[in-house]
Amino acid sequence: MTKPKLTYWFDFASTYSYLSAMRIENLAADTDIDIIWQQFLLGPIFKAQGYETSPFNLFEIKGKNMWRDLERLAQYYDLPAFTKPDPFPQNGLRAARIAAFYAGEDWVPQFIKSIFFAQFTKAALISDELIVTSLNDLGQDGDALLHQAKSDLSMKDKLRQVTEEAQEKGLFGAPSFVTEDGELFWGNDRLEQAIDWVKRNSQ
Amino acid sequence: MTKPKLTYWFDFASTYSYLSAMRIENLAADTDIDIIWQQFLLGPIFKAQGYETSPFNLFEIKGKNMWRDLERLAQYYDLPAFTKPDPFPQNGLRAARIAAFYAGEDWVPQFIKSIFFAQFTKAALISDELIVTSLNDLGQDGDALLHQAKSDLSMKDKLRQVTEEAQEKGLFGAPSFVTEDGELFWGNDRLEQAIDWVKRNSQ
Repeated sequence: MTKPKLTYWFDFASTYSYLSAMRIENLAADTDIDIIWQQFLLGPIFKAQGYETSPFNLFEIKGKNMWRDLERLAQYYDLPAFTKPDPFPQNGLRAARIAAFYAGEDWVPQFIKSIFFAQFTKAALISDELIVTSLNDLGQDGDALLHQAKSDLSMKDKLRQVTEEAQEKGLFGAPSFVTEDGELFWGNDRLEQAIDWVKRNSQ
Repeated sequence: MTKPKLTYWFDFASTYSYLSAMRIENLAADTDIDIIWQQFLLGPIFKAQGYETSPFNLFEIKGKNMWRDLERLAQYYDLPAFTKPDPFPQNGLRAARIAAFYAGEDWVPQFIKSIFFAQFTKAALISDELIVTSLNDLGQDGDALLHQAKSDLSMKDKLRQVTEEAQEKGLFGAPSFVTEDGELFWGNDRLEQAIDWVKRNSQ
């Protein structure tokens, strides 16, 4: 029996993607849904909408409210206090290449969560050091993977390719949850409904 | 004893405000919270953000997903099938003046709900006829109120004044829920949390 799938599209710069990363495994735990953790890059997708940086930065009043919203939501979900990294958004390109290239490997969701967690609960930069340490902690060869992320063209290509795929699927923000029957749920607020949709439509 | 207040800021053109209008009384029913139904105009607020029309219309892919989201949410909340009015957004200025000027009167929430309901479950235009019929159904003098909405300058002023107040409070979209201690919750997705906030902070 093939398990029904739900693809969780995320970007390391996306604050609301962080909340979903922390919640998705628990929410799917009592289901037979297979969660696909799918890295992509928001940058090219925002550019196509005319944004040169995060909409958080472009619309000041709205952005300010979103930071407050994130503080409240972290509390609501029983997560540690939310911290805003400086600068925001950060350059998470090397971590993104690793997450996209090795998508499907057992250790990848844990790697993704540790990058998110450091960024949004310790205001940590997504530095080479953070990447290497996070990988080593998971029993991977951090130095080798970082070296690959810097030099291996097929890694760069993979990330570009999945980002193009996201655009073809009509993604316009993150997180997005896409079902096998083509429903696109946008935003951390829709995570429960996306899971519910897959449950109801795969029985 | 004064009851704690939660102000529900809405605009008739706001699809997600419709969902909140249909839900807010039930959600507040078991609390002692006093819901203030506060009409304002999104137009000037969107203009200040550089939007000349609804963001639904400006960002095509995102807008398309929002219509789908509304269909799914209407189902999720057990509301009748969601219908998109044409044109969108509509001119609801006369209804808005009435709702703003008579805010606080007993019949106003029901008037607001009937305008929203006709618009988003029957794709009805916010015509003079709809306004008059809705008011008459509530035991008001529809013709007299419509006449006032067309000719009474103090009604026009009131709507302008509350819209300025909304801008001063930092509102950037609708629905917005504002607590007495100054928390601003944006969006129908935050209605439960806004009510919960008032409950926790007014005991």
